[in-house]
Amino acid sequence: MPAESTAFSWIDGQRRARECAGLVRTLRPRPAESALLDLAGNDYLGLTRHPEVVAGAAEAARRWGGGATGSRLVTGTTELHTRLEQELAEFCGTESALVLSSGYAANLAAVTALAPHGSLIVSDAANHASLIDGCRLARGTTLVAPHADPESVRKALDTHEGPAVVVSDTVFSVDGDRAPLAELAAACRASGAGLLVDDAHGLGVLGDGGRGAVHAAGLAGAPDVVATVTLSKSLGSQGGAVLGPAPVIEHLVNAARTFIFDTGLAPAAAGAALAALRVLRREPERAARAREVAAALHHLLTDEGLSAVRPDAAVVSVRAPSPEQAVRWAADCRAAGLFVGCFRPPSVPDGVSRLRLTARADLGERELAEAVRVIVRTAPDGAFTAGR
Amino acid sequence: MPAESTAFSWIDGQRRARECAGLVRTLRPRPAESALLDLAGNDYLGLTRHPEVVAGAAEAARRWGGGATGSRLVTGTTELHTRLEQELAEFCGTESALVLSSGYAANLAAVTALAPHGSLIVSDAANHASLIDGCRLARGTTLVAPHADPESVRKALDTHEGPAVVVSDTVFSVDGDRAPLAELAAACRASGAGLLVDDAHGLGVLGDGGRGAVHAAGLAGAPDVVATVTLSKSLGSQGGAVLGPAPVIEHLVNAARTFIFDTGLAPAAAGAALAALRVLRREPERAARAREVAAALHHLLTDEGLSAVRPDAAVVSVRAPSPEQAVRWAADCRAAGLFVGCFRPPSVPDGVSRLRLTARADLGERELAEAVRVIVRTAPDGAFTAGR
Repeated sequence: MPAESTAFSWIDGQRRARECAGLVRTLRPRPAESALLDLAGNDYLGLTRHPEVVAGAAEAARRWGGGATGSRLVTGTTELHTRLEQELAEFCGTESALVLSSGYAANLAAVTALAPHGSLIVSDAANHASLIDGCRLARGTTLVAPHADPESVRKALDTHEGPAVVVSDTVFSVDGDRAPLAELAAACRASGAGLLVDDAHGLGVLGDGGRGAVHAAGLAGAPDVVATVTLSKSLGSQGGAVLGPAPVIEHLVNAARTFIFDTGLAPAAAGAALAALRVLRREPERAARAREVAAALHHLLTDEGLSAVRPDAAVVSVRAPSPEQAVRWAADCRAAGLFVGCFRPPSVPDGVSRLRLTARADLGERELAEAVRVIVRTAPDGAFTAGR
Repeated sequence: MPAESTAFSWIDGQRRARECAGLVRTLRPRPAESALLDLAGNDYLGLTRHPEVVAGAAEAARRWGGGATGSRLVTGTTELHTRLEQELAEFCGTESALVLSSGYAANLAAVTALAPHGSLIVSDAANHASLIDGCRLARGTTLVAPHADPESVRKALDTHEGPAVVVSDTVFSVDGDRAPLAELAAACRASGAGLLVDDAHGLGVLGDGGRGAVHAAGLAGAPDVVATVTLSKSLGSQGGAVLGPAPVIEHLVNAARTFIFDTGLAPAAAGAALAALRVLRREPERAARAREVAAALHHLLTDEGLSAVRPDAAVVSVRAPSPEQAVRWAADCRAAGLFVGCFRPPSVPDGVSRLRLTARADLGERELAEAVRVIVRTAPDGAFTAGR
């Protein structure tokens, strides 16, 4: 019925507020083939269109079907899922792994299962939305610690008796900076707390052959450390996983609602991720190359006077003077053939707008130079902090 | 370090408690080809291994790559996603659709975006875990209404001024019973509230040609009704979608965290779902056949004296005397070549354990008879309520 229904009319006010603030988001579908140079996606190793990854997806669909057909505890666990979990755990140096349908679901699962009623969660202020939502869903009490501040974490842990877990990204998605993992682990161990880290942007980029930030910090396989990863960035597919001691993974199987009540990851996604993992094992230099490209991007852009955070992994964040100018800048890049990310409020915790560039292992020197040329040429005046 | 770490030792107590209660869940990987007759999965239309669905997955991976490469607002929206959204909306008779990486994510997105601070959510007591988690994440206040009780919903709505939304499954996943949609819509309209329903088990099974429970109730396209669906059940793939008026979908694009901060659905999953949707349009009789098979299962089992809920869609729930006997019964079925679901606490809100059977449109009469024979033969004595 009612064309005159007012059930959702309150949405209009929110839309107008977004329009006034210049913060309306719209979807822009992309074609299969594009002439744009892509520095916006998270395909850090350039594997999503690798022939073996594509074949891994196609073969898995052919062999197992288009979907997993049910939740992991009923019909949704295939031998392919188990194989992927075994190889992921082995690669990252942990005892066990559990694959979920997204990195978001993996973070919700891990935080909620590891923070029961009466426990304390100490969460970094710059954590990803999925970790924050995990904290909100968990039965434990959350204390938000200042960004990358192990001393504050230590103090927060000191206030609490009983189970506690410290939750942090390993590489923060907005600025691409790295968490002080060794110091966080020391703070956790001083008080018997667990450490749960999201290595979405570390896997495939950091550590020996791309084994991730946890491996790089010497924490892989530790009984008090749990990591989550995505299959949708370096591994060019979709999905997420939780990596840790076997008892923790068994606990998640029994207690994590986003695992228990969700359909299993589609076979094609599992097959693509497994194929990508095998390419990475065979070609470990891809990880170092992604870091090299990021360092080169940072070097070239700051040399031109732009303000960029020194990258700890594959994400390079360039400051823009305002949300409007960030949007304009990204659009001008696009018009000039370069696809870059644009982060602005409310997606950024500190209110600072940025261009977000992702280094890809498969970018050549000429593409790098072209990207830098476009970014510098289209930059608003206010973006240059050092004189030109 | 510490082999002696106690960070997660509290998990041991939970494990022991589960062991004592006979409630330990373990994963059982299945092979690609199995001789088991499957009445456990949610592949209601038998489409997950349909050649066109498998080809849809493979072709999408070949054309678009193994993953979407980024969030939907950056690089993760392909023309394939848009096409799927258009055809889903058209099929279901709604203005607009938005595809997410899972049905779980779709429900979190819809509930949180439609229940802002100061709003009221009235949530059915038997709702799916993902709707419940959506309520817990939302800024609005949740009132839980007794199961399938429009009068209670009406009373709850009367207590509140301002935005309100009534949240319900259309077909409840445990017992397979249907929500009183027309009465819920009337209650909503009497007080200007919105209606948000999860049609995961209705799409492909109920309504004209499988257009779902919302369409069947004459509510498709209504300005005050929003539905979520999964791509992982009748459509044989992975993912979820929110269907509703265009302004609501635009609002989700701007406000729903599980949409904004998640990688887009893998192209292979989008391709498989789109292919399945097209098969369903061409062969609408699949929907009626799934309902027929469910009705036949119910009829045959209750004729034998078992206690089963009359199915409103494709799920048939058979009561077991206890969790232990339910587990044993399901295991005995499996040993006899039949794969059935087993629901027991804490997955069931009322503490009643069940075998859960799913009707598939592609089950033949002989398979049906064999399934019934096995279920009856392996049933514990206490499962028979009428005399044999």
